[in-house]
Amino acid sequence: MVVRNFWSRPRGSAADHMTLRRHNLAVVLEHLRAVDAASRARVAAETGLNKATISSLVAELIDRGLVREAEAERGRLGRPGQLVRLDGGLVCGLGAEINVDYIALMALAVNGDVLADTRLPLDAEALGPAAVLDALGVLVAGALRSLAKLGAQVVGLTIAVPGLVQVEPGVVAVAPNLHWHGVAVVDEIRERLGAVDFPVRVDNEANLAAIASYTEVLAGAHPSARDVVLLTGAVGVGGGVVSDGRLLRGGHGFGGEVGHIPIGPADRTCGCGRLGCWEAVVGLGSLLAASTAADDKVRDPALDVVARLDELSARARAGDPRVLAALEEVGVWLGRGAAVLVNILNPDVLILGGYFAHLARWLTPAVDRELALHVIAPDAGGCAVAVSGLGFAAAVRGGAQTSLEAVFEDPTLVVVADAAQTTIGGKA
Amino acid sequence: MVVRNFWSRPRGSAADHMTLRRHNLAVVLEHLRAVDAASRARVAAETGLNKATISSLVAELIDRGLVREAEAERGRLGRPGQLVRLDGGLVCGLGAEINVDYIALMALAVNGDVLADTRLPLDAEALGPAAVLDALGVLVAGALRSLAKLGAQVVGLTIAVPGLVQVEPGVVAVAPNLHWHGVAVVDEIRERLGAVDFPVRVDNEANLAAIASYTEVLAGAHPSARDVVLLTGAVGVGGGVVSDGRLLRGGHGFGGEVGHIPIGPADRTCGCGRLGCWEAVVGLGSLLAASTAADDKVRDPALDVVARLDELSARARAGDPRVLAALEEVGVWLGRGAAVLVNILNPDVLILGGYFAHLARWLTPAVDRELALHVIAPDAGGCAVAVSGLGFAAAVRGGAQTSLEAVFEDPTLVVVADAAQTTIGGKA
Repeated sequence: MVVRNFWSRPRGSAADHMTLRRHNLAVVLEHLRAVDAASRARVAAETGLNKATISSLVAELIDRGLVREAEAERGRLGRPGQLVRLDGGLVCGLGAEINVDYIALMALAVNGDVLADTRLPLDAEALGPAAVLDALGVLVAGALRSLAKLGAQVVGLTIAVPGLVQVEPGVVAVAPNLHWHGVAVVDEIRERLGAVDFPVRVDNEANLAAIASYTEVLAGAHPSARDVVLLTGAVGVGGGVVSDGRLLRGGHGFGGEVGHIPIGPADRTCGCGRLGCWEAVVGLGSLLAASTAADDKVRDPALDVVARLDELSARARAGDPRVLAALEEVGVWLGRGAAVLVNILNPDVLILGGYFAHLARWLTPAVDRELALHVIAPDAGGCAVAVSGLGFAAAVRGGAQTSLEAVFEDPTLVVVADAAQTTIGGKA
Repeated sequence: MVVRNFWSRPRGSAADHMTLRRHNLAVVLEHLRAVDAASRARVAAETGLNKATISSLVAELIDRGLVREAEAERGRLGRPGQLVRLDGGLVCGLGAEINVDYIALMALAVNGDVLADTRLPLDAEALGPAAVLDALGVLVAGALRSLAKLGAQVVGLTIAVPGLVQVEPGVVAVAPNLHWHGVAVVDEIRERLGAVDFPVRVDNEANLAAIASYTEVLAGAHPSARDVVLLTGAVGVGGGVVSDGRLLRGGHGFGGEVGHIPIGPADRTCGCGRLGCWEAVVGLGSLLAASTAADDKVRDPALDVVARLDELSARARAGDPRVLAALEEVGVWLGRGAAVLVNILNPDVLILGGYFAHLARWLTPAVDRELALHVIAPDAGGCAVAVSGLGFAAAVRGGAQTSLEAVFEDPTLVVVADAAQTTIGGKA
């Protein structure tokens, strides 16, 4: 593992003792995230810091609840060393999401524990921005109270929205499927939460979902992937691109807008008002319209999206010809649009998320076929198709992960736990 | 300027004196490339190396012909310092190109001088790979003889091909418009050149053109651009993408394949055999078919492409209605396809190259209009449209630039010039 190079900063900006200490705490914490568990001696050897410093840094990280003592080291010659590993079970990042037919929230701890995970169905378009933001404010405030009772510290909130987001002022410029224009989400939520001592951010839903899904494939079947494309099926199609290991945002943060590639039939009107957009044939609305009658309960947006998809899956398994034909058609269009992206971006992995993942069993055969036909490079350019297991929680998980990064940048953000909280912290 | 961090290498691999010296030579050379000219004292202050070391390093770089003494420093208090600046007028990289209707070569010196620039029209498809590689071998061998007479040292050759390239073994996997499949370009050219002491590489034409064009826009109207898309108009459309300052290659090096986005009319057959590909409506063949009669001399591939485009420009300026209508149609399709890329990649700058640049005056109004209509983000996502001034030399220039990078990695590749060559070197 390459240690971040503290000393390469410009000579003008002399580092004081606190800055150096903070940097070294971050180096040790980041190292433990990468290696899972290690002895103090190994951390010293691999970071280049001396053993006495490591002992002091690890002690501070334990005090802050970010690291804990673990089992003794096995499988090495000599005296077994005591291992330390990442903890942080009471330090969490929040991810929230505003989507067309639900709002959601996740609290994710540094050690990977999920401390809260909620999704509420609502009709965002009918309610309008103010009421949706009210509902999200109530959801977040409730989670903050529960987390406080647990003794958990929140280090940040990142809100996912399916649209074009200006991360810096924290504004949703355009969210076509929500019919939002210029909504100052960060200010609005801050107002509803009152004084909170952590940063609040807003970002594109598909970008945040891509961060979580990329983490997922790295931990799973594709540990060396550097280029991935995530396609999230919902009312629209969200696109998130990781290029050479980094999220592709583009020059102004508007990258990954894939839903409106004009490859669909020219008679289909999209939510954006244009004709022939890709998402007008692969969005959930199109699938529901083709597979169900107008009064079918599956179309009811007040029902949770997972319940509706479970019902569609049941009908497909039972051989409902209308559902199977609609899934085949969506699969073909999904593959054709995906081929455009694979030709341009040549990902190692194309990840299907959202409703595409839920119904992947019926979609992937057509996707594979269309990729083989329409990708110019041999063997679909080496692109594998993977199905995300994160469900509709990918964006809130990616948001929570993003919020947590602050701790890895500066572990001193986490206040030293008092005795009572340390007990709740569940140390070994 | 951040100096590359030599000392962060793993502790196991101790650096010997020569490695250190080589690294420091590279640091000084890279610094002079970035700042243009500087006194030894300033180089010392900005690289963190001591003045005695800098004097010795600069002396060696002067001996190698890579740096020269320049005018005295102005505009500072105190004794004026003698400046040194990048030279390398006799150290050059070669870029070559194999395209559908020409082959080309450029020799570019470290100081930016063009020492050779040739383009030969030929019909690559009719000739087949062996004869085209023979012709390129003759072109390169001739240039090597001329450069040797000048006393110039060649440090590398990079060959551009419009197709899917496996850079590592040096093989063109597929080049649809050349009808090449699995051609081992590097081995074939090495065989034809006999023993040469520099590396030979092959890369995608649009990737290399993007490197040169990105350098061009950084030096011009968009010095802070980090995300650009280059569209090169030729028989097909080449796409080169720079994302966050780096060439987007994708997982297997096949990224940037933009020509076959299926947005064109379904009745137009592409060179790849598919229907409705973008390049089937914006490629040069489509423009010529729509704007000229079947026996028009402008269609003759034996004529140099620039002469043919000059003739089309003259007709457009004279108001030829058939040419103007064809240009308008190509402009509309160019804008529609560009909008797909701008939505996905959100570039700061969309650069038009190849024949699109040559005829930009008649194409850009329609491109601007279509971008405004079809890009989802407001104001085309902040994307400016720029016209490359590199003409059909963008890919050979990018190839030559790529070849030259070896010198900035290791300046000791350049042999110390003998007395006679030093004179030719044109030092001040």
